[in-house]
Amino acid sequence: MTLIISPITSIPDVKPGDHVAQLLIRGLTAQHISLIDNDILVVTQKIISKSENRYVDLSTVIPSEKAFEIAITSEKCPELIELILQESKKILRMTPQTIITEHNLGFISANSGIDHSNVGRNEKTGENWVLLLPNDPDASANNIREFVKMELGANIGVMIIDSHGRAWRYGTVGTMIGTAGVPAIVDLRGKKDLYGYQLKITRVAAADELAGTASLIMGQANEKIPAVHVRGFPYPLRCSSLKEVIRPEEEDLFR
Amino acid sequence: MTLIISPITSIPDVKPGDHVAQLLIRGLTAQHISLIDNDILVVTQKIISKSENRYVDLSTVIPSEKAFEIAITSEKCPELIELILQESKKILRMTPQTIITEHNLGFISANSGIDHSNVGRNEKTGENWVLLLPNDPDASANNIREFVKMELGANIGVMIIDSHGRAWRYGTVGTMIGTAGVPAIVDLRGKKDLYGYQLKITRVAAADELAGTASLIMGQANEKIPAVHVRGFPYPLRCSSLKEVIRPEEEDLFR
Repeated sequence: MTLIISPITSIPDVKPGDHVAQLLIRGLTAQHISLIDNDILVVTQKIISKSENRYVDLSTVIPSEKAFEIAITSEKCPELIELILQESKKILRMTPQTIITEHNLGFISANSGIDHSNVGRNEKTGENWVLLLPNDPDASANNIREFVKMELGANIGVMIIDSHGRAWRYGTVGTMIGTAGVPAIVDLRGKKDLYGYQLKITRVAAADELAGTASLIMGQANEKIPAVHVRGFPYPLRCSSLKEVIRPEEEDLFR
Repeated sequence: MTLIISPITSIPDVKPGDHVAQLLIRGLTAQHISLIDNDILVVTQKIISKSENRYVDLSTVIPSEKAFEIAITSEKCPELIELILQESKKILRMTPQTIITEHNLGFISANSGIDHSNVGRNEKTGENWVLLLPNDPDASANNIREFVKMELGANIGVMIIDSHGRAWRYGTVGTMIGTAGVPAIVDLRGKKDLYGYQLKITRVAAADELAGTASLIMGQANEKIPAVHVRGFPYPLRCSSLKEVIRPEEEDLFR
């Protein structure tokens, strides 16, 4: 089946308290897209975080001793480092530019997902505001999913994504940080290949595979596309969660 | 712009010496898809390897001392381990099930990309044959690209992909191992965000972001879809190569 990824282009600048699901439905309606069962909406964390008012004014943050200590060798200010520490369970690696953490939500990423770009809380003091990731991206995704079901009767999937760096390879890729309906992992164990042999590759990170291309369509700079609509996802939707894809430390060869 | 990924469904079982570019064009023609400038063909390594006769009969492999040594703690046979060693520069990690290597081509993956599934060289002795990755996937991609340009006059991109495991997260994702025309990295450094600030996220692994969803459409088991057609890739095509995305060891925090 053909997969179609369409940018949702008419989402206004999201503000705290805005109802993202409603904005998405309005945007889709303006583009004459009617949601049907098994469609997926992929949404950047940024507009979820904005709607959930995850802004922090750095001047209100009181750095801990540890944050001041790290600041000696880091290019980041102690206030930002403090937030990175608060949002994470553990620091994995550190360079002057980047602090790679295990986020409280479980995934590994740079700077606990805290970002200055496209924040724009206040034009005069914009550089001083940062945006944390959504508090519970699975729940945020689920809220949108349930609202769509209630409003339109369609059983869709919803994913929240962010851009993550990777071990071994340059460049960021769109990565799922919250899902409702989109399977984080599709388990092919027990399936046979074309010639009747048991498959060796057994588990496909389906949500992440979709997240990459969704992110490609959103772009990173000023494209103003905070969400995309996907039709033709080849696996059945089902209950899933971020946790499904997180490899625990004791099973991870690369921490 | 909308991105459309269409499976190419009518590719026959590829044999050594087969002309993959011709098979792809025939498949597209049967599906009434005419290639145009900026289209992309994404092809699984498996049919490239088959056409390039990268089969090895394990019974012809003479294991080195090192392979025998590793076999003591590995579930793999010494012959397969020997091939994994020959195809790689370095072993990074090892478990009884998996040997994670730096492939001769530069990327990190399990078992040097050597796989038993969907090989099917010989029905009677199938378990004894394995398939190595293409010798030079950038060149394989480029051959297809140039053939299409010559035959149809269209300036397309071509990617060869494989399924790779990852640090930190469960599941495999489709990953680019060779490209012609599709930019491995799109560099956004210097671009401004919506509010006029310099972007923090600077380099997007565009080819890998596309590879994930392409792989999703191909499936892993017996779907018989070894290639997909992509229309609507949002960045200009240009000369690129696998090397562009490989993070050298001295810059890698996770080896």
